[in-house]
Amino acid sequence: MAKKRKTSGKDDRKKDKYLRLIPLGGLGEVGRNMTLLEYDRKILIIDVGFRMPEEDTPGVDFIIPNTDYLNKRKKDIVGVVFTHGHYDHIGALPYVMDKIYKKNLKLFASPLTKGIILKRQDDFPREPKINVKEVKDGSRVKLNPFTVEFFRQNHNIPDNLGLVIETPVGRIIHTSDFKFDKNPVNDLPTDFGKIQRLGDRGILLMMSDSTGAEEEGHSLSEAEIAANLEKIFEKADGRIIAATFSSLINRIQQMITLSEQYNRKVCVEGYSMKTNIEISKKLGYIKAKKDTFIRTKEMKNYPDNRITVLCTGAQGEEEAALMRIVTKEHSLIRLQKKDTVIFSSSVIPGNERSVQFMKDEILLQGAEVYHYKMMDIHAGGHGKRKDLEKMIKLIRPKFFLPIHGQHSMLFAHAALARKNGIPEKNIVVAENGQVIKMDEKRIFISKEEVPANFIMVDGLGVGDVGEVVLRDRKVLADDGIFVIIAVVDKKTGRVRGSPDIISRGFVYLRESKELLQEARKKVIVIVNKATGSGGAVNWSYVKKEIRSNIGQFLFSKTERRPMILPVLIEV
Amino acid sequence: MAKKRKTSGKDDRKKDKYLRLIPLGGLGEVGRNMTLLEYDRKILIIDVGFRMPEEDTPGVDFIIPNTDYLNKRKKDIVGVVFTHGHYDHIGALPYVMDKIYKKNLKLFASPLTKGIILKRQDDFPREPKINVKEVKDGSRVKLNPFTVEFFRQNHNIPDNLGLVIETPVGRIIHTSDFKFDKNPVNDLPTDFGKIQRLGDRGILLMMSDSTGAEEEGHSLSEAEIAANLEKIFEKADGRIIAATFSSLINRIQQMITLSEQYNRKVCVEGYSMKTNIEISKKLGYIKAKKDTFIRTKEMKNYPDNRITVLCTGAQGEEEAALMRIVTKEHSLIRLQKKDTVIFSSSVIPGNERSVQFMKDEILLQGAEVYHYKMMDIHAGGHGKRKDLEKMIKLIRPKFFLPIHGQHSMLFAHAALARKNGIPEKNIVVAENGQVIKMDEKRIFISKEEVPANFIMVDGLGVGDVGEVVLRDRKVLADDGIFVIIAVVDKKTGRVRGSPDIISRGFVYLRESKELLQEARKKVIVIVNKATGSGGAVNWSYVKKEIRSNIGQFLFSKTERRPMILPVLIEV
Repeated sequence: MAKKRKTSGKDDRKKDKYLRLIPLGGLGEVGRNMTLLEYDRKILIIDVGFRMPEEDTPGVDFIIPNTDYLNKRKKDIVGVVFTHGHYDHIGALPYVMDKIYKKNLKLFASPLTKGIILKRQDDFPREPKINVKEVKDGSRVKLNPFTVEFFRQNHNIPDNLGLVIETPVGRIIHTSDFKFDKNPVNDLPTDFGKIQRLGDRGILLMMSDSTGAEEEGHSLSEAEIAANLEKIFEKADGRIIAATFSSLINRIQQMITLSEQYNRKVCVEGYSMKTNIEISKKLGYIKAKKDTFIRTKEMKNYPDNRITVLCTGAQGEEEAALMRIVTKEHSLIRLQKKDTVIFSSSVIPGNERSVQFMKDEILLQGAEVYHYKMMDIHAGGHGKRKDLEKMIKLIRPKFFLPIHGQHSMLFAHAALARKNGIPEKNIVVAENGQVIKMDEKRIFISKEEVPANFIMVDGLGVGDVGEVVLRDRKVLADDGIFVIIAVVDKKTGRVRGSPDIISRGFVYLRESKELLQEARKKVIVIVNKATGSGGAVNWSYVKKEIRSNIGQFLFSKTERRPMILPVLIEV
Repeated sequence: MAKKRKTSGKDDRKKDKYLRLIPLGGLGEVGRNMTLLEYDRKILIIDVGFRMPEEDTPGVDFIIPNTDYLNKRKKDIVGVVFTHGHYDHIGALPYVMDKIYKKNLKLFASPLTKGIILKRQDDFPREPKINVKEVKDGSRVKLNPFTVEFFRQNHNIPDNLGLVIETPVGRIIHTSDFKFDKNPVNDLPTDFGKIQRLGDRGILLMMSDSTGAEEEGHSLSEAEIAANLEKIFEKADGRIIAATFSSLINRIQQMITLSEQYNRKVCVEGYSMKTNIEISKKLGYIKAKKDTFIRTKEMKNYPDNRITVLCTGAQGEEEAALMRIVTKEHSLIRLQKKDTVIFSSSVIPGNERSVQFMKDEILLQGAEVYHYKMMDIHAGGHGKRKDLEKMIKLIRPKFFLPIHGQHSMLFAHAALARKNGIPEKNIVVAENGQVIKMDEKRIFISKEEVPANFIMVDGLGVGDVGEVVLRDRKVLADDGIFVIIAVVDKKTGRVRGSPDIISRGFVYLRESKELLQEARKKVIVIVNKATGSGGAVNWSYVKKEIRSNIGQFLFSKTERRPMILPVLIEV
């Protein structure tokens, strides 16, 4: 739910000798990660992510951060660093290019993250070509007055990097999204000793991922997931249809490895799944034998128990591959008995009903279903409470800023930090758009605020869908629209003939002829009364009368409140 | 997601010597419970519930069963029995009165269920007054050719009754919604011996609640909940604001008892909460000291730590009391520091985001939050897998029909029955509208089907919102509407002046003047071209041209597809 925030406070940037931390997104929400670090007017940008739309943003494709604070500040941007290749960290980049792009703009990302960023930029041919410099574990780049050092962090996409940032006031750690994993798939195990040594260097501030801060215990290791997935592969005697997020490169690797092990060919369905596998294969992050992948068309050349379909749609997305298979709209794949369908992902809040619909349909069509509530076949990419505590203990920062999560997660993470010895005054729970100031001695939320409201992307429009348009969409969705067109004779001031009524989403018109007839009569009475007295007619008053009278009339008959649009045409 | 089902099969009711079980709702869904038992054309109705609307039924208030099968069958209805007072079991009654009401209609319910049913009928003054006969544990009523015996079952509302139904083909048990509870609040503990004795009588078929069939273990006892709630009461040093479902009478009792114990007065907020407490108090199902309840206005006469607010809105419902408190729209209550807010309910799928929004807001306003994921302060009313297994073992039916639940729950429950010794051929997983036939020897799904689609209630309209209206609402919600009004001169066939455009929910009009201007020009060209050749004009062709051309134009400019409504007026 979008909140408006007033921009307030004086511009004391020039005389500011504090380090300024400005979260433009990611606080009070999951997604849309983007943070600015500013010192002496120089700005470092960390991540440029988007988030998915909500129920109360109908029709919106996704939501990006407001970057108005960067207006006319291009010269001050010393660089952009990306932690990893998930869209909630890189997805808004094409939309903020006008704010940040300059010829010598410095962008830094690990090889896989870079691959995903560049592939996405291809979809925006009008945007300028960008040059992303590769960094890896141990890389160090000087972006005056900052120096950024990258360190490997486990997550559910390879090539994820945490940041150590040397600033004029002290050293900051940004954890990136992370989990601890002693037995990861497709990645090195967490090196706790190394993280501890980072802490040994003396950390002024840690900014740490809060997504798992309300969940007890440790997050599962990918190796445990692999073992459970193997049980399913062992048992399946028909096709396996495995749906997961296309960004879960390591999970996809597991499915491929298991398929090879169990002598199955792999078909890939879904645009983003194909794209991500292609990039990851090219860069060596997904390993597969040469003849593992086949086209879906070739499926029929193999027995069912030699086929795995890897597809998108584990969230019940309407256009995704799995949904099309389930609703029999897929051009090549129909469910059949003995198929085993695996949902190897959690369910994002808001998607429960579509996922339930798919599960039910799959079962009714006679196939087997495995989902994460039945068996541990999905692990989140985020450390849980025990892991977050361990991170705090390893790093031992002086100040603590929980990032990335709903407010309830940020508060829970802050409480965890207090419990682990960080004093209350050294912990800041902030909101997007607040300016957090920090020096060696203290950290606090200043009175200054920058714009950080939701910017909606809908089709080609960025930011043009605002409160008014969304409110109208919600009214239209609930009770539809009722357009009344009356032609008024200029000379007599009377309605000519019978007004036209066009209505959608309100009632089934064919069954509501009486209602419409009565409404028409009422409109004629209202107009004729208003124009009858002679003299100049106040048309906007007449329209208001129609809206209010017809509105009441329709409500009394139906208890619905369609949007009423009167159109009066003088001829 | 509404599914259409064709009504098929011959009407072989007359010669049918099977018992016919016809679920009109509750299979493949949670809610909308209504089942018919038919033998020799005589019909017994079990429950008449509704369900809440879904994301893809915008604007709909709730969804009721299709009861067309009962058209002209009033004389055949031998009675209606209600298991308990939750709306998913009684809520559709006012809407099906025209199908079932006759002077001597026999309805049966426990005292609390009866109280809730009658209170609700008051809201429908035009419906005929009904006469509900009270039944209780051990009651037996003869409704030829059936005899129904009622037995006490624990749930999260008092006065819940399971059914033993003697039919000409054998004895049936309908469990109602149930949980096992050795230490309930406000109710007697489960009498396992008695349930076992029911089984000893020889049960041909058990129809059993499947809501918990995918959840491991046992359901929590209300006594455990009470103990945890007490910890919160012990600790709270400000007001306690406790939100729960207004139908959870036993949970409400716990809050009242704890408040009395901790010397707190209780204010009640929310219409349904007030109503349910009133009915339950009157009938003796809620016990409170005389001076426990105060009006919210009187709150200020007591210190904060002597106040409990019991309110609706634990699901984040927009109009409910808690939401109004959180958004500062409540006329009497504002959140303050030291308030403790308790969410004593689970989150219904689809409501996660609103509940998260409320939690975040409450924390930002400085109050404490407790919810069921942090602490066991809510128990469902439905037995989980271990409980369901126990029920099967106690009753030992020959046939098994899982009822009340999503298909995935029904399938899981069926698998549980197989595991506990009921042969596959004796288990039926059915869908709404199927006619299940049964005699002493076998149970099967016949080819006959009856209408069982969703009937939407929207305001005063029942069933008038169908696929067309819903589809339009969805289009309107996603991309809005674009109405074009062109006045065409009869003589010249040319557009007079500039067409009017009215648009809502599409773009912000003030910022889109160019787009509108271009669209107007295009409309003029299309109309003038069509009318220019002289002769009769095919107006529906012209409208089609406008829809398709302007649609393409707007999509090319915005990548949105508003609903386009052309209006052409000849003058």
